[in-house]
Amino acid sequence: MKIALAQLNYTIGAFESNKDKIIRSINKAKAQKADLLLFAEQAICGTPAYDLLNKVTFLDLCMDVLDEIASCCDNLSVLIGLPIQHNNRTISTAALIQDRKVVRFVGRRTILWRDDEGYITPSAGCEYVKICGRKVAVVVNEDILSEQEYGDYADIIVNISASHYSRGIVEKRYEFLRRLAYTKGKPVVFLNQVGAQTDVIFDGSSAVFDGKGKAIALLKNFEEDFQVVDMDASEPRVEIPYQDKTANVYHAIKLGLADYFAKNGFRQACLGLSGGIDSAVVAALATEVLGPSNVKVLLMPSQFSSDHSVEDARQMAETLGIEYDIVPITETYTAVINALHPIFGELPFSVAEENIQARIRGLLMMAISNKFGHILLNTSNKSEVAVGYGTLYGDTNGALSVIGDLYKSEVFDLARYINRDSEIIPENIIHKAPSAELRPNQRDDQSLPPYDVLDAILYRMIEEGQHREEIINAGFDAEVVYKVYGMVLRNEHKRYQLCPVLRLSTRIFGKDRVMPLTNRYGY
Amino acid sequence: MKIALAQLNYTIGAFESNKDKIIRSINKAKAQKADLLLFAEQAICGTPAYDLLNKVTFLDLCMDVLDEIASCCDNLSVLIGLPIQHNNRTISTAALIQDRKVVRFVGRRTILWRDDEGYITPSAGCEYVKICGRKVAVVVNEDILSEQEYGDYADIIVNISASHYSRGIVEKRYEFLRRLAYTKGKPVVFLNQVGAQTDVIFDGSSAVFDGKGKAIALLKNFEEDFQVVDMDASEPRVEIPYQDKTANVYHAIKLGLADYFAKNGFRQACLGLSGGIDSAVVAALATEVLGPSNVKVLLMPSQFSSDHSVEDARQMAETLGIEYDIVPITETYTAVINALHPIFGELPFSVAEENIQARIRGLLMMAISNKFGHILLNTSNKSEVAVGYGTLYGDTNGALSVIGDLYKSEVFDLARYINRDSEIIPENIIHKAPSAELRPNQRDDQSLPPYDVLDAILYRMIEEGQHREEIINAGFDAEVVYKVYGMVLRNEHKRYQLCPVLRLSTRIFGKDRVMPLTNRYGY
Repeated sequence: MKIALAQLNYTIGAFESNKDKIIRSINKAKAQKADLLLFAEQAICGTPAYDLLNKVTFLDLCMDVLDEIASCCDNLSVLIGLPIQHNNRTISTAALIQDRKVVRFVGRRTILWRDDEGYITPSAGCEYVKICGRKVAVVVNEDILSEQEYGDYADIIVNISASHYSRGIVEKRYEFLRRLAYTKGKPVVFLNQVGAQTDVIFDGSSAVFDGKGKAIALLKNFEEDFQVVDMDASEPRVEIPYQDKTANVYHAIKLGLADYFAKNGFRQACLGLSGGIDSAVVAALATEVLGPSNVKVLLMPSQFSSDHSVEDARQMAETLGIEYDIVPITETYTAVINALHPIFGELPFSVAEENIQARIRGLLMMAISNKFGHILLNTSNKSEVAVGYGTLYGDTNGALSVIGDLYKSEVFDLARYINRDSEIIPENIIHKAPSAELRPNQRDDQSLPPYDVLDAILYRMIEEGQHREEIINAGFDAEVVYKVYGMVLRNEHKRYQLCPVLRLSTRIFGKDRVMPLTNRYGY
Repeated sequence: MKIALAQLNYTIGAFESNKDKIIRSINKAKAQKADLLLFAEQAICGTPAYDLLNKVTFLDLCMDVLDEIASCCDNLSVLIGLPIQHNNRTISTAALIQDRKVVRFVGRRTILWRDDEGYITPSAGCEYVKICGRKVAVVVNEDILSEQEYGDYADIIVNISASHYSRGIVEKRYEFLRRLAYTKGKPVVFLNQVGAQTDVIFDGSSAVFDGKGKAIALLKNFEEDFQVVDMDASEPRVEIPYQDKTANVYHAIKLGLADYFAKNGFRQACLGLSGGIDSAVVAALATEVLGPSNVKVLLMPSQFSSDHSVEDARQMAETLGIEYDIVPITETYTAVINALHPIFGELPFSVAEENIQARIRGLLMMAISNKFGHILLNTSNKSEVAVGYGTLYGDTNGALSVIGDLYKSEVFDLARYINRDSEIIPENIIHKAPSAELRPNQRDDQSLPPYDVLDAILYRMIEEGQHREEIINAGFDAEVVYKVYGMVLRNEHKRYQLCPVLRLSTRIFGKDRVMPLTNRYGY
């Protein structure tokens, strides 16, 4: 039996273009004499569609498109994912098409991830179907992780999925599939979506393992791909390449950015270039994805900005070949301070004045965005988002946060990766001490622990879910741990108002970790 | 059997103060010789606690507190809600305390509302327990809506809940409980939480119906209450008072505001007073809840502000007796325009310049908030949030949106209710044509349909989930409907970054209605 795998990039609700892609793959599979062609979970409509899944008109359109697709499938069996109505609920399943007809729905997802909870109803799980004389177990998405006995009654296990990228997932998934094939002694075919939907990035990485756990097909990471595998021939082993975590993060972000712009019909981006590492990394990534002519940056020095910051930012913009303007904020700052003087009087300079600077910058960037239609990219990193070291309605502005799910130390890793072949980000930006430059001689480590310590504590707290005392027992200074915990808990309200953040970790704020804003629990 | 109902206002994670309240009610029940005392669902920890429910330390604390509570219960049976670990998942259940011991857990919630999906695992549903010789069916939260046969095997149905307020819910709940008691022929006891947790408002309204469907006890709406009901005596009928929807909205907002401040340890609020109806209503509500000395407003006129707006706002502030300052934005606006002139050149005045004004106001309000610690209240209404008629990082600023779940016409209703005894909001503010005053002679109805039409379309679209063509068929102008639909769909990104909004409707954005930001489906 020849199985074709179509790893495609869908757009939510774009039924026409999704259908066209699907039919092109059907024609390819027919040309290559495949017996069975696989498409991902919710291929027809794209995912996560949230409350669109509760619209009858949306589900009806899925069925209409399915029928159109079926009519193209002569001499080809197809398994394709879509949401359907079942007992007045929406479930996620696969349609089996044979002889140009939808024969039945098979495999009904039972395990949900949090983006699907409340929109999809858990259903029966794995189901079996006969295709080309083989008994095929059809498993949708993470049902493959369940302890069902599906493998035992099947000749082949097929897993159609929409499994999103997170740090380390690619290698973990390969290893899980390899082990599954080996222990069940059955071939396992995994077919994933690829492409980004706002914050969610599907990495593709579809794969086929034979009954001995040997990889016999690996589809591309972060790109569309198509491959036909003959399950009866003795296909040669494919080596699983080493998965460099920073390289994967880099490709994930590029895909996330590219699809955010393409699928929303945007072309141009803008951002503020401070001379610091975060905005430098975002500018480099945006330029690579959108091209230098589509990225515009502002340098917005105040009286507290160091000369080297402006110089570093200018050098960066010139290296990238992007348009930049220098818009000093000093006069606007003075106007605001004058306007508030009757109220502020002679009160000393405080965080209020610091934030005014950050908010003027946010205001100027939005003015550029409104005037010219450039999409403002947010440049916050996960460390500062965690502890609230950033000005709401200033630094937090933007339509999409590009590196908001990377800790500061991971941003440095990414900067070095971007510079792997040539110095795109000036070395000076990478090596100087981080500073918000909102008062004279400010440095981040005056308000925060050094980033290596901060990130280590945050990683344990956020990614590992460790208790405060557990982190102290691991050898961290109790006072520092208490301070970091307090900052993270107190700043939930800033994260609440943040724009969508490209998901790169296993524990992103607001999705994988949701805390009540009114909350007295502090551990 | 004498059943005591303790309708209390809990705080999430405030174990000590929750426990103290609970023990005070236990002492009251003992003094009044009650046999059984009821507390609400998740009384011990408060709700919704989101991912706190996945922390073992949080669940352990619940159990510790439960044991302390049990030790106070001599000669009293108690049913009290809490989350517990069950098969490595968290479920919501009730503990039965008898003879100073936790005897068992009974009633395991199976129906979830969206705030609980992914945090609580559905479990077995209704369970039975013998208390004082009666068979009691214990039902947690909305499991009462299921079609289980629980009533048939019980002498009494007890429903402990945390059912939040939404428009019309109070009367609907009474009617449901009345009917249930009547059809099952069994007394029904409903015990709810009261109080707000950020955006979620629990309205209390606990009630007891006898086996004929007659109300024999109604606890207060929107306030703590305690009552003992003798189920064996022939208690007199209590008339269910008429539920005025606007009055209930008013009390719900007051409770929401009061608890947001009290539970977060805040005392003072600030907001911008524009001379329009939205900020007038919010100022009136905040003043009533926090007291005039704790509310500070800014009047921030630009060159486009009409004299009457400033005058109306000033009159309003003086009537309320709150502190106000006039901070013109003209000079700051000029400074921004000058700074951008090298980039904007001679491009005509556009939405960019309109938004600059709104963002300067947002910046000034945040400066006040940062300098003095006043909490900024957001004054957006649901109609403008729906169509995106508001400036992101300007009008949308604030820690809490007070009326963001009320359509403009409901804001007018509320204004008239606030003025029911005396003219708190100047009549001129209620009667003039709404305008953002961001360009000369601007009126909202130049960009939007008149609010009565807009609200009618939005109500059908959002609250009723009607399809575009369905609304046109109902007689609305097709072009207007298409325009409104387009605006709602295009502005999902603004809602994504909005602060928490007090929940007053049955379909609040971002919770009851979640749309993908990247989405080509437009119906």
